[in-house]
Amino acid sequence: MLRFLTAGESHGPCLIAIVEGLPAGLSLDEEAINRDLGRRQGGYGRGKRMQIERDKAEILSGVIAGKTTGAPVALRIANLDWPNWRERWAADDLPALTVPRPGHADYAGMAKYGLDDARPILERASARETAARVAVGALAKQLLAPFEIAVGSYVTEIGDVEAAIPDLSPAELWALAEASDVRCPDEDAAARMRAAIDAARRAGDSLGGVFIVTATGVPVGLGSHVQWDRRLDARLTAVVMSIPAIKGLEIGTAFENSRHRGTQVHDALYPDGQGGVIRRTNRAGGTEGGMSNGMPVVIKAAVKPIPTTVTPQRSVDLSTGEPAETQYQRSDVCVVPAAAVIGEAMVAWVLADAMIEKLGGDSLEEMTR
Amino acid sequence: MLRFLTAGESHGPCLIAIVEGLPAGLSLDEEAINRDLGRRQGGYGRGKRMQIERDKAEILSGVIAGKTTGAPVALRIANLDWPNWRERWAADDLPALTVPRPGHADYAGMAKYGLDDARPILERASARETAARVAVGALAKQLLAPFEIAVGSYVTEIGDVEAAIPDLSPAELWALAEASDVRCPDEDAAARMRAAIDAARRAGDSLGGVFIVTATGVPVGLGSHVQWDRRLDARLTAVVMSIPAIKGLEIGTAFENSRHRGTQVHDALYPDGQGGVIRRTNRAGGTEGGMSNGMPVVIKAAVKPIPTTVTPQRSVDLSTGEPAETQYQRSDVCVVPAAAVIGEAMVAWVLADAMIEKLGGDSLEEMTR
Amino acid sequence: MLRFLTAGESHGPCLIAIVEGLPAGLSLDEEAINRDLGRRQGGYGRGKRMQIERDKAEILSGVIAGKTTGAPVALRIANLDWPNWRERWAADDLPALTVPRPGHADYAGMAKYGLDDARPILERASARETAARVAVGALAKQLLAPFEIAVGSYVTEIGDVEAAIPDLSPAELWALAEASDVRCPDEDAAARMRAAIDAARRAGDSLGGVFIVTATGVPVGLGSHVQWDRRLDARLTAVVMSIPAIKGLEIGTAFENSRHRGTQVHDALYPDGQGGVIRRTNRAGGTEGGMSNGMPVVIKAAVKPIPTTVTPQRSVDLSTGEPAETQYQRSDVCVVPAAAVIGEAMVAWVLADAMIEKLGGDSLEEMTR
Amino acid sequence: MLRFLTAGESHGPCLIAIVEGLPAGLSLDEEAINRDLGRRQGGYGRGKRMQIERDKAEILSGVIAGKTTGAPVALRIANLDWPNWRERWAADDLPALTVPRPGHADYAGMAKYGLDDARPILERASARETAARVAVGALAKQLLAPFEIAVGSYVTEIGDVEAAIPDLSPAELWALAEASDVRCPDEDAAARMRAAIDAARRAGDSLGGVFIVTATGVPVGLGSHVQWDRRLDARLTAVVMSIPAIKGLEIGTAFENSRHRGTQVHDALYPDGQGGVIRRTNRAGGTEGGMSNGMPVVIKAAVKPIPTTVTPQRSVDLSTGEPAETQYQRSDVCVVPAAAVIGEAMVAWVLADAMIEKLGGDSLEEMTR
Repeated sequence: MLRFLTAGESHGPCLIAIVEGLPAGLSLDEEAINRDLGRRQGGYGRGKRMQIERDKAEILSGVIAGKTTGAPVALRIANLDWPNWRERWAADDLPALTVPRPGHADYAGMAKYGLDDARPILERASARETAARVAVGALAKQLLAPFEIAVGSYVTEIGDVEAAIPDLSPAELWALAEASDVRCPDEDAAARMRAAIDAARRAGDSLGGVFIVTATGVPVGLGSHVQWDRRLDARLTAVVMSIPAIKGLEIGTAFENSRHRGTQVHDALYPDGQGGVIRRTNRAGGTEGGMSNGMPVVIKAAVKPIPTTVTPQRSVDLSTGEPAETQYQRSDVCVVPAAAVIGEAMVAWVLADAMIEKLGGDSLEEMTR
Repeated sequence: MLRFLTAGESHGPCLIAIVEGLPAGLSLDEEAINRDLGRRQGGYGRGKRMQIERDKAEILSGVIAGKTTGAPVALRIANLDWPNWRERWAADDLPALTVPRPGHADYAGMAKYGLDDARPILERASARETAARVAVGALAKQLLAPFEIAVGSYVTEIGDVEAAIPDLSPAELWALAEASDVRCPDEDAAARMRAAIDAARRAGDSLGGVFIVTATGVPVGLGSHVQWDRRLDARLTAVVMSIPAIKGLEIGTAFENSRHRGTQVHDALYPDGQGGVIRRTNRAGGTEGGMSNGMPVVIKAAVKPIPTTVTPQRSVDLSTGEPAETQYQRSDVCVVPAAAVIGEAMVAWVLADAMIEKLGGDSLEEMTR
Repeated sequence: MLRFLTAGESHGPCLIAIVEGLPAGLSLDEEAINRDLGRRQGGYGRGKRMQIERDKAEILSGVIAGKTTGAPVALRIANLDWPNWRERWAADDLPALTVPRPGHADYAGMAKYGLDDARPILERASARETAARVAVGALAKQLLAPFEIAVGSYVTEIGDVEAAIPDLSPAELWALAEASDVRCPDEDAAARMRAAIDAARRAGDSLGGVFIVTATGVPVGLGSHVQWDRRLDARLTAVVMSIPAIKGLEIGTAFENSRHRGTQVHDALYPDGQGGVIRRTNRAGGTEGGMSNGMPVVIKAAVKPIPTTVTPQRSVDLSTGEPAETQYQRSDVCVVPAAAVIGEAMVAWVLADAMIEKLGGDSLEEMTR
Repeated sequence: MLRFLTAGESHGPCLIAIVEGLPAGLSLDEEAINRDLGRRQGGYGRGKRMQIERDKAEILSGVIAGKTTGAPVALRIANLDWPNWRERWAADDLPALTVPRPGHADYAGMAKYGLDDARPILERASARETAARVAVGALAKQLLAPFEIAVGSYVTEIGDVEAAIPDLSPAELWALAEASDVRCPDEDAAARMRAAIDAARRAGDSLGGVFIVTATGVPVGLGSHVQWDRRLDARLTAVVMSIPAIKGLEIGTAFENSRHRGTQVHDALYPDGQGGVIRRTNRAGGTEGGMSNGMPVVIKAAVKPIPTTVTPQRSVDLSTGEPAETQYQRSDVCVVPAAAVIGEAMVAWVLADAMIEKLGGDSLEEMTR
């Protein structure tokens, strides 16, 4: 069992994650964690805060002489913005936010937790929390690496611009995405995506989009059909859907598949000439019967346009019950490339957990024996 | 905490579910459970087995004098087909199935569990297991009823036929769906769906589709933004994705939303004139920030065409390594209406669990106080 | 993860257990399950019901051709007494029990679940539920057997009679216990125990006692020190404490150890001459730092005298608020030998779960490779 | 659900705890946390490190303007000793510890995690981790306070000195314990305990003992009889047994009760004259049927003498296979008073979790309505 909890507010001192259940003997590469943190922060369309924060993860526990010991790994990511906020927090002189932003956690959170100020809600609901998840995922990726399981992502849509994804291997698509500030392997579409982001920025608006996470090298038989909560597809779905702003998801080309006949969409098996099987298609996105089937795992996710916009949106001032307009908070225009990186992290975490479940998780040496 | 486990094979003696964590004092309506079981079995496009089984749930525990006691409720659904299979099982004379069907759990399951016969896999991976889930969901619906939370469903697509969903309330759409053997509230589309099913049947093929589950009366603030695994959207989608054949999901109009700007898709709040708020749109599908927001919860799911087809599909005989074709198993042509009923059940279960979490779950009397 | 849920009332139709997470490929011995069920029912000091019930477990799922498939195993143990009760239940003409028995779940259960009749509480709180646990444990023992892990028990005290446990191996003590109707390896003490039970019966009273469960062959390193809920000692004791009537526990000779100095109680290590280590003492009871240490696991448990006695006890009639005396329910005089068998089952379950965690749990073949 | 994870090594930079599931609106008293941390560090018989560390908890998240927000609370306790160790860790020049100390996690941990140095094991297995648990428990106590649930402790035995606990209320016993540097309410015994500790120190040895945790104001019906893992006694046991050095445990006077007849040990109920019931005895220690019964919860725990002693113990050098003696590590002589404080914390945490389960846990306001 590989589990994690995160803690921390957007403008508090730091984010914390505890990752529990890593095997002993894994050499942790701190720079690789920071690279992933940087990948989350990059991308065309991010706001000013991304110029303030340069996330670095500090490993507080669980690693001795560079290697995991089996003990929980606590990670701390400082909020570099904190000194600017510390006094205001202490003085408690921040004005109450009483006009919930449509699309954000404000309204439901205030109702749930009995608050007349949305600030405590948005502080935790902020996507800043996902930095901790990216760090968690970076650990998971390092656990997967010795098994030659790799996880990557690319963006296929931003706003109404849809990319034509070239017919390349996942690794090749990841490399193209990595070179693109919108994480899009189609350069032509990328240019139009940037233009769309610019236009949205000028309009004081925001854009959503769609990304794909793929995982290669996944062995056959992670997850199980035997009980609902053992299914790999369900576990992947839960964790990807738990990323803020993600509201839609498909494994493989699920919606497209649903419009075709069975003989047209299932991935035929062929002998691979060495006693095993190969597939020539992967419409199933790497899972059958709730288990990995040896093909790349492919998850597509729909990211909503972020709810914080310069252009006001209609709402209600809950302190008066009167109509009101939302007020601008510093924010981004488009977070789809960042969301893709977070998606990678969460997929990596599920796969790492499933590998530990399959092989036992005492030590990397035993797992790779 | 409301949890359940199911057990049972497709051709074994019965299915069993244990539902644990129901409050005391709930009057269970056994007929309502059986009605939902019947709704799962119905639908245009089901195979011959549906004429054999007439599912009835037997309550084995947890209910005394018609009311729940707080103790676990065990449910048993007999497989009426069992007497036909009992001897063959006992004699162990069933031929090994060594040609995995593309799209089914066969291949991954054999690899995972170290089997050279797919039969043990398909016996459990069969959608027959979902009868137990429907019974679980029927209990959950009965727990939700005193809170005026209702869950229903309708089909929007079968194969390439897409319905035009009329602009009606969820309850009205449910009523129209209930009267349709393809659970489609658009009569004209329903006729074309039936024709598509007929054509697929004649072609020895299968059809998938898309359905929507809606829940009304859901109070604001179920789930939470504070930790990934407390998010209502993550919990809802995990459990819907765990239904066999479902591979795609969206909450609200997520994929469509991702193509529009923020100011166009978020659901504005307006004063309701009584100190509360109303919304005139529900593109978010009833969740914001991982919490219910008071609007109907709307989940759309893509169902793949079932992988068992009369027309053979290409595969490999794993006992020889040679190419082979799949052999026909008794099956359905289209299970989308049934999948919608299962979707209802699973959504109801998550909502019931969330209500218990919110209110405490000792007794219905305390919950409704 | 090997988990289970049980369901069922004392006078309902049956008990049900679902055991989820067994590896595939385990040959289940149904007779061995029934032997353990019989061991639970036996013992000097049991009441009349034990002459009615002859528990047999029916495997409803998860086993095909005699072997587990990885799917959940549902077990059903019929209540042979049920036909005598069926009509009374249906007619709902059983008088309300409004005088809670001290020491039983009656009072707290009625308060918790908002009931004015204790019957629904005692039906589930009855020790009859433990038959299902014994069946669960019998499956676990069968999983442990290929690893040469064995679990057994013996009784050391009944009432004020304390046995002198001979200095024998665990297996020898188990064999002596098995031959004794009070599960006591000290024949002389056993005779006095029987006499004490006879005297208690004549007095209309009940007796408690103490038993020890031991497990041999447990490999080093099950459980972990790294997080509280991974500790083997915490997991073992929780599940043993969850057995009705058990309220005290120690691992090894914990209370005795607490009265001595450190240099006197810790178990020194010696070279075993083959590169490993041996111990000459086992005061720690087989766990150090929350992990198994290679020595036999030894858990001692205190069983309270059962609260149902022929001699009335003082209580209150909750329907009137007036003082009242408890009314006799058919019951046993002493259940310590039975509790020991249940203890074995629960210890076996934790160890089986820990072995799956250590080795992965897809198939027995992989686990034993 | 109120859950926590801790992280951190004994000589690393800090301990971290994340407490997840606290309701919103709880005013956290940071000084009260630190007071409990100080109580853990105090006590006659502690070693030199206790003079180095002056634990203070820093709240990193989950609290805004002094109140919880529903978001996870991360706590950081700095290791003041860290600057002395930082360079040695970085240089990796600490000699390998290859002689496992009997009674400690060393041997089992090295085997489990595949290490040839015990240092990574003892760094996490060290009782220093319990500082984080005390902080967690301090939060739990603050949640319990508005419900007038209080948790306290006292020591009843150290080494072979047994106190005569006066017949006072729990709160009175706690007050006496608080004034005693061995947490013992019997002054005469306390003097003998100190003498025993002095003698053990002179002998280069260590002492164990026994303590009692009591909780008052616990409402009837926390926990449940309906499923093994819902039982309050099992949950309390798990968490108290998970404290390092604790190996025995009883609820009420369980071992004593097991030696008496049923009519002698069960706690009779009497009318309280106001429609409720009272008890004049509490041999059951506040739980019946796995539920709280309204009487104080009473848990007694046996603490082993700590395994690190100045006087060497026999062991094996695992790097050579040769006999060896353990080497002295800086340590305490007796930690029983500290263990009692940790016991309080863990009991408080279980009760807080059970209260949230009973009442729902969105906000304190709703819980106390």
